[in-house]
Amino acid sequence: MVDTAQRSKARPTVSDTNPNTDTGPVAVGGVTVQPAVDVASLGRQLLGTWADVRIQARELSARPDMQRIEGLSMADHRARVFDQLHVLAENGHVLRAFPTHLGGADDHGGNIAGFEELVIADPSLQIKGGVQWGLFGAAVLHLGTEEHHNKYLPGIMDLSVPGAFAMTEIGHGSDVASIGTTATFDPETDEFVIHTPFRAAWKDYLGNAAKDGIAAVLFAQLITQGVNHGVHAFYIPIRDETGAFLPGIGGEDDGLKGGLNGIDNGRLHFDHVRIPRANLLNRYGDVTEDGTYTSSISSPGRRFFTMLGTLVQGRVSLDGAATAASALALTIAITYGGQRRQFNAGSATDEEVILDYQRHQRRLFPRLATTYAQTFAHDEFLVKFDDVFSGKATTDADRQDLETLAAALKPLSTWHALDTLQEAREACGGAGFLAANRIVGLRADLDVYATFEGDNNVLLQLVAKRLLTDFSRKFAKADAGALAWYVVAQAAGRAYSGTGLRSLTQLMADRGSTARSVGALRDTEVQREMLTDRVETMIADAAGKLRRATKLPKKEAADLFNAHQNELIEAARAHGELLQWEAFTRALEKTEDPGTKQVLTWLRDLFGLGLVEKNIGWYLINGRLSAKRAQAVTAYIDRLIARIRPHAQSLVDSFGYTQDHLRAPIASGLERERQTEAREYYAAARASGTAPREEKSGKK
Amino acid sequence: MVDTAQRSKARPTVSDTNPNTDTGPVAVGGVTVQPAVDVASLGRQLLGTWADVRIQARELSARPDMQRIEGLSMADHRARVFDQLHVLAENGHVLRAFPTHLGGADDHGGNIAGFEELVIADPSLQIKGGVQWGLFGAAVLHLGTEEHHNKYLPGIMDLSVPGAFAMTEIGHGSDVASIGTTATFDPETDEFVIHTPFRAAWKDYLGNAAKDGIAAVLFAQLITQGVNHGVHAFYIPIRDETGAFLPGIGGEDDGLKGGLNGIDNGRLHFDHVRIPRANLLNRYGDVTEDGTYTSSISSPGRRFFTMLGTLVQGRVSLDGAATAASALALTIAITYGGQRRQFNAGSATDEEVILDYQRHQRRLFPRLATTYAQTFAHDEFLVKFDDVFSGKATTDADRQDLETLAAALKPLSTWHALDTLQEAREACGGAGFLAANRIVGLRADLDVYATFEGDNNVLLQLVAKRLLTDFSRKFAKADAGALAWYVVAQAAGRAYSGTGLRSLTQLMADRGSTARSVGALRDTEVQREMLTDRVETMIADAAGKLRRATKLPKKEAADLFNAHQNELIEAARAHGELLQWEAFTRALEKTEDPGTKQVLTWLRDLFGLGLVEKNIGWYLINGRLSAKRAQAVTAYIDRLIARIRPHAQSLVDSFGYTQDHLRAPIASGLERERQTEAREYYAAARASGTAPREEKSGKK
Repeated sequence: MVDTAQRSKARPTVSDTNPNTDTGPVAVGGVTVQPAVDVASLGRQLLGTWADVRIQARELSARPDMQRIEGLSMADHRARVFDQLHVLAENGHVLRAFPTHLGGADDHGGNIAGFEELVIADPSLQIKGGVQWGLFGAAVLHLGTEEHHNKYLPGIMDLSVPGAFAMTEIGHGSDVASIGTTATFDPETDEFVIHTPFRAAWKDYLGNAAKDGIAAVLFAQLITQGVNHGVHAFYIPIRDETGAFLPGIGGEDDGLKGGLNGIDNGRLHFDHVRIPRANLLNRYGDVTEDGTYTSSISSPGRRFFTMLGTLVQGRVSLDGAATAASALALTIAITYGGQRRQFNAGSATDEEVILDYQRHQRRLFPRLATTYAQTFAHDEFLVKFDDVFSGKATTDADRQDLETLAAALKPLSTWHALDTLQEAREACGGAGFLAANRIVGLRADLDVYATFEGDNNVLLQLVAKRLLTDFSRKFAKADAGALAWYVVAQAAGRAYSGTGLRSLTQLMADRGSTARSVGALRDTEVQREMLTDRVETMIADAAGKLRRATKLPKKEAADLFNAHQNELIEAARAHGELLQWEAFTRALEKTEDPGTKQVLTWLRDLFGLGLVEKNIGWYLINGRLSAKRAQAVTAYIDRLIARIRPHAQSLVDSFGYTQDHLRAPIASGLERERQTEAREYYAAARASGTAPREEKSGKK
Repeated sequence: MVDTAQRSKARPTVSDTNPNTDTGPVAVGGVTVQPAVDVASLGRQLLGTWADVRIQARELSARPDMQRIEGLSMADHRARVFDQLHVLAENGHVLRAFPTHLGGADDHGGNIAGFEELVIADPSLQIKGGVQWGLFGAAVLHLGTEEHHNKYLPGIMDLSVPGAFAMTEIGHGSDVASIGTTATFDPETDEFVIHTPFRAAWKDYLGNAAKDGIAAVLFAQLITQGVNHGVHAFYIPIRDETGAFLPGIGGEDDGLKGGLNGIDNGRLHFDHVRIPRANLLNRYGDVTEDGTYTSSISSPGRRFFTMLGTLVQGRVSLDGAATAASALALTIAITYGGQRRQFNAGSATDEEVILDYQRHQRRLFPRLATTYAQTFAHDEFLVKFDDVFSGKATTDADRQDLETLAAALKPLSTWHALDTLQEAREACGGAGFLAANRIVGLRADLDVYATFEGDNNVLLQLVAKRLLTDFSRKFAKADAGALAWYVVAQAAGRAYSGTGLRSLTQLMADRGSTARSVGALRDTEVQREMLTDRVETMIADAAGKLRRATKLPKKEAADLFNAHQNELIEAARAHGELLQWEAFTRALEKTEDPGTKQVLTWLRDLFGLGLVEKNIGWYLINGRLSAKRAQAVTAYIDRLIARIRPHAQSLVDSFGYTQDHLRAPIASGLERERQTEAREYYAAARASGTAPREEKSGKK
């Protein structure tokens, strides 16, 4: 400590102000800070921009009548969730995004914030509500015009018209542009003819389609005057009052799924079903009486992405819901881990609390750090979403940024949720496998989050393409000289140097001081540069390899792209992780309580350095870290984990979930009671002399 | 090719005989080989030592009445599985391990081989059978003596006495030595008094305990004459003919679980329940009429591990069942991936088969390689198990090797199954989430394999301790000079050199030839040395850090060990992976068909180099690979994956599962039919001129 303080005086850097190696008081900028989490203020910060809405949603999620009952049959679960949906319709909780004049609040961000908290009650409730109001209703809202709003939204909002969002087809999953269903305009009757031309064009996996839906927003190739104008949305009734399909419409029940069995997913198909021309949701494209197609967006590709872009809220809400489920699972596992004792390596009588085992910490704390990063990133994401949808941010760039953000964050957080739920399950052992302790049910339900609203791999590929476009734009503006410089720098980069990496390589230069290297690693700017540099270099590398694609025939260009698909997707992942790290770092700047800030800084460092450790091979291969520095990363992570241990319970308590949300007996204090009873039994037996001797001591 | 052949002449090495970079014919030892899998012969090799038993078990698993029905209620599923168990009892399929004179076959290896294939019918059936015959029955067989065999085994074998294996307690999970249940001998009545002293000592998670079991083998601390002789097993009736608990015995139903709901897991507790002295399963420890304890094994620790060691078969069978489930999931996902088309990057009309995407290959093929490695490793493991249990291998070392093997392989294969089932699920998109396509159900059932029969992390820690012991023994025999040499070599190792690594560093020396470096990577001996070196070095490093533990007080020694727990567990994992790689390599040596051998060699290389790539940071930090070589690893893996692509279907077909085993509509050819119908529809429309023009072309 003294040594470090002296060095700090000699050459003050950010890293040198934070040189602690233990869990005691910490010197920050000359002031001594006792690391401690202020649960109330951190909890408020985690609730984010729409804190009040979230608190209200959590009250709703705490109501037993809104919660999942484990072990219901599929039929009973569906019926229960449908009933719960009526509660939501009545209290308006899920209607904030709809127009004020129809009873909504034109509040897009708040709507999602409240909606995603429902995952805590039952993911089936969340997703079924999402189908009704977030997909079916939102499609009418965003793709329809005022006439559609006034005609359809009231019934959608009050649930008198349950509806399906009939986009996905069995044959085309995430490739929506290629769907086969056609909507051919017939000027004779002023109608569209909706038709399913082959089996692969059946609509599939649609919530509300198997049982409850009486209408749908249907996506089909709009054909008029012999021209296919691409995918458009249509409002179409599908069932009559008795629940029977209307003429020409058929379907199937998807039956039992891996989870989310409170939702009646199903299939739909159409045999030359006629609907009025007015049923075209015509905000971005319209057909006149004589069959002339008109659109405010001339490029068919841009029109398609604009229409689909209005439906980004699904991805936004999955990011938030997946993060909430991760937080819940970690609250359960860390609470249990801090109470349960197993094995007594360090003592003759007392068993260790399992959260004191290094491996247990290594399993749970990095996931806790990621969950924090995601929580902060999600709130910023939601603000961006709200800005775009409320009209505060209106440029094309804003919309593209929002979509890239969605495509980058949703895959990471939904995969993280599955990984975290599984690790939490295993960390709770056999008790974690019991449905009563919630984790297995949540995991089963969230499984499909990885592939719906866009398959995660497909979304990350979109991000990679956006990053490549950005990269090529950057150099399109640059002159030939700049490009030549870039190529030289790249070559140099391969031989243990770096382009945008000067300050980093200076900081990292091996001066034989381990303390300094650790100091550098915990420097915010060093972490930022290491993470940013990796994304930039990966994209630049890929761009270099793909440059000749523009000169190749289509097939060969596709093959070339495909030969680098995996690294592009990894680059997109790195980009998403950087976004999360940036959000965590910005949140840290807003944290005021010094003790909390110190603990959060460790957690952010654990997140950032965890990303470096995960990709340590890349940093070594590309000369960004020496072998010695790379070892320091792992050693420092071990130290961070030990420092975070005393604050683990406070960090999960700050998520703000009560027993009504957790509903897991193992996280209720029950385990502590059992452990205490057992320890008291043995202590009493030892004290009274009635305890049997051990065989070994008996032989002495 | 010519270049390589010339080099080959100049300096023949194994690697130089296999220099191919494409998927065409291959020159192996001067002979041209067409890589192609002979599905029949490879299938036979995969079936392994007990091929006939496996074929018979698969016929049984193909019977609809033995299979799981998705969506049954817990009660119905339990009833169905119990009925199926009677079929198994009648046909003797699960009785091979029992004594010949009682109707068994004294066939331990064959018994497990047949048993683990039942996972394909329904994991609940497999595990419920495992409870009855593999745990309850096997405990009587291995811990009891002839009197117990004759008295209890007939009823266990014919299922007239369903029973629980009452070992695990809620408070002690994998720490069996610390269970709280007591069996106190009372010489007055010649009885043991079975007692549950506190809530945490309730037996929990026991199959057959909630409903069907009328008896149990119960594990308790044996106390006689005031001395606790540690954990012993007792035979104890628990229910009467009406299904009611006997006096002093109570219990609870564990209720719904994350999977395996065909098994009635439950809890048991005992209030001073008296059983005759003869009910002690007394093979390894006995109590005379006057209460004197006797045992053929004087060390209580060794006695405990010997008793538990007889129950290793659970771990053996989980390794096999998890591998079978992985093979099944990959068969479904790869078959589907080879038929489904999505996106048309390379063509105006034809969409790509999704298995042609690099990312899709990267997701599935390394997991296929691991599944092959596990299949071969499992067969060797089973042979070892059979040797020990049939009495062919009888030394302590044999038994310890078997247990270490079990502790190393079971964690890896059960985790791999969960990872593979999830990746297969996602690779099949929404279709993968439907229960009808099997994957989600298998994943839910296999979840608990990671923590039962020993928590995976706890097992790997046992392996690490064994490796540390081996290491210290090696140097206990060595003189001081050898140890000094070792320490120097270690220090050198840190500075970019290696101890047992001379031949490797020579091969790896950077001579500027990429071809040679790739050649070296596919050299069997280079892979072996890289993987072996990592295990040895990790253990040696840890041993160095832990050396002073022997001189420390218990608490500090435990803290020191704990500070390295994570790296020890990683070393154990590396050891298990090396065992799998070795088994794959030995299997390769036995493969006769040259085309098959070539494809399998690529798959083995993918497995081996995949392990190197996963730990590339370690190889770089420790100077085992240069940055350039490290990049070559990834580049070569990309090439291997492209080479394996044409053989992927044959490689999964070789697992030998028929449609009766797969029972997944998406792997039935249905997807190909749908794709064909859609393509023919569009082709016909184009040919007839009825296809609408695209909007873009319409504007030309």
